[in-house]
Amino acid sequence: MTGAAVTDAPAGFDVHAFLDRERDWVNAVLAGIAPTLAEGAPSALREPVEYALATPGKRLRPILCVSAYRVVRPAHPPDAVYRLACALEIVHTYSLVHDDLPSMDDDALRRGRPTVHVVHGERAALLAGAALIPAAVRVLDAAARDLGLDVHARGRLVAELCSAGGARGMVGGQWLDLLGEAPGARVDADGLERIHRLKTGALLAASLRIGALAAGADARRVDALTDYGRELGLAFQIVDDVLDVTRTDAELGKTAGKDVGAGKATYPSLFGLEVAERMARERVARAVDALHAAGIRSAELEALAAFVLERGR
Amino acid sequence: MTGAAVTDAPAGFDVHAFLDRERDWVNAVLAGIAPTLAEGAPSALREPVEYALATPGKRLRPILCVSAYRVVRPAHPPDAVYRLACALEIVHTYSLVHDDLPSMDDDALRRGRPTVHVVHGERAALLAGAALIPAAVRVLDAAARDLGLDVHARGRLVAELCSAGGARGMVGGQWLDLLGEAPGARVDADGLERIHRLKTGALLAASLRIGALAAGADARRVDALTDYGRELGLAFQIVDDVLDVTRTDAELGKTAGKDVGAGKATYPSLFGLEVAERMARERVARAVDALHAAGIRSAELEALAAFVLERGR
Repeated sequence: MTGAAVTDAPAGFDVHAFLDRERDWVNAVLAGIAPTLAEGAPSALREPVEYALATPGKRLRPILCVSAYRVVRPAHPPDAVYRLACALEIVHTYSLVHDDLPSMDDDALRRGRPTVHVVHGERAALLAGAALIPAAVRVLDAAARDLGLDVHARGRLVAELCSAGGARGMVGGQWLDLLGEAPGARVDADGLERIHRLKTGALLAASLRIGALAAGADARRVDALTDYGRELGLAFQIVDDVLDVTRTDAELGKTAGKDVGAGKATYPSLFGLEVAERMARERVARAVDALHAAGIRSAELEALAAFVLERGR
Repeated sequence: MTGAAVTDAPAGFDVHAFLDRERDWVNAVLAGIAPTLAEGAPSALREPVEYALATPGKRLRPILCVSAYRVVRPAHPPDAVYRLACALEIVHTYSLVHDDLPSMDDDALRRGRPTVHVVHGERAALLAGAALIPAAVRVLDAAARDLGLDVHARGRLVAELCSAGGARGMVGGQWLDLLGEAPGARVDADGLERIHRLKTGALLAASLRIGALAAGADARRVDALTDYGRELGLAFQIVDDVLDVTRTDAELGKTAGKDVGAGKATYPSLFGLEVAERMARERVARAVDALHAAGIRSAELEALAAFVLERGR
């Protein structure tokens, strides 16, 4: 394995300063967009929509999207690229709102805040979540228009978002995840990987693809960024599983030990903690290898990959 | 009022034969699309998606969309127009699946069939419903591409669908409807009209707008078709309220008397049956007047308007 050499951030690149700066940009743009998403809607629906979007988060998907854009066009991107990127965060936010519902994972806490249904009720959370999906598409298409993309590129971006955010992506993964929790269900290593490829990997990969396609990347670079995104998604999920075992509620900002409590298949439960941690390193190494194989040198993307591991330390 | 003269279908136009023929076309195209919507998704998610789309229905929204297209281009439209139209039925289907959920209207029966959550479980129904939203956008955009629409027109169609299917449209209306059912809530005539303008009118109007825009209609005709759709939506809802009082479960294919049982504000409860029926006729008259004022002579759309009233007889 080639993992050891690439699990540290590139020398001289301050990943924390980078993440803080990018997250601030994304948050500022998202805060500007949020009130427009439910414009004209009843105020009682605007509130849960805006509450959901104000959930603090790493903003990993939009940051990946902008970094992928910069692989092709290295200057500071126009605002429309951040709006494009926010469409991915909006889809991610909808999935969190629905996943937390009583009929789904029944989570009361998300990043240290009461979840949407706890504050606004189950019906409002269901509706606000669903309303975020068409809202994300509108944000994406409007940003693509402002970037001057042609009809072919715009159609492709819309298809990428809708595919990753739908049955063959995120929603399919959530369903497999829930099926795996059913009494008597047994999820093996292949099954677990499939769950996470769909549930997390599809939208992460789409984030990178959308950023790259918006910048006019060629197929080789789009493919490499897709591979990077898929491997990163798996690494991210393995680390998440590890953190669920090793951290407290307060450290996580959500209910810790939930997977173990639910008797759920996770990387640590299938492989043990040590092997799971090694698997995460291997995934990150493969992610960076995919970039290098296509001649992509991106301090940002390499640092982001290393950062995923650092969370688990 | 001008209603009396236009509540009958245009002479010589067989609305039932028309509706049967169009519904068969829509059903055939929808049946062809349905398996592709969750392609690549876990089979346990494909089943509820396909079950939901196979719910029998009037297919009113796609029929309106195709009829609006024919206002501009009277020949039999290409298949892509029916696919475009099916996007509206897919959004409508998602809304039915979610509205029927136990945490929402808690309906066990829809058009004489057990609802999706009764057959496939609540979680599957929630996920399948949500998965239909991005699926509808993909169908719409692909159909718009196949029709050779330019980037401006395609963006506008996507925005129309996402706006009508989101917080400022259908979802907002469902939320107002639920708020109106809360203990102590009181919905007056204006409130009831607002609910239905959002819950039903927005997507009906969008169906007409999308068909008209895809055919290249000018603003005057698009506006007239929008007015027609809004009035028709209200008429449709008034008739629905009347039917809830006057019909049995078997006749309706769903639970009758639900509104009365829930103490819900309806047109008959606010105005009495006779006035409600007159209001429906007035709305239909206004719908047809809007067409005439813009010089639109469409036997199909006039017959459809008359048909909405006929359901209530």
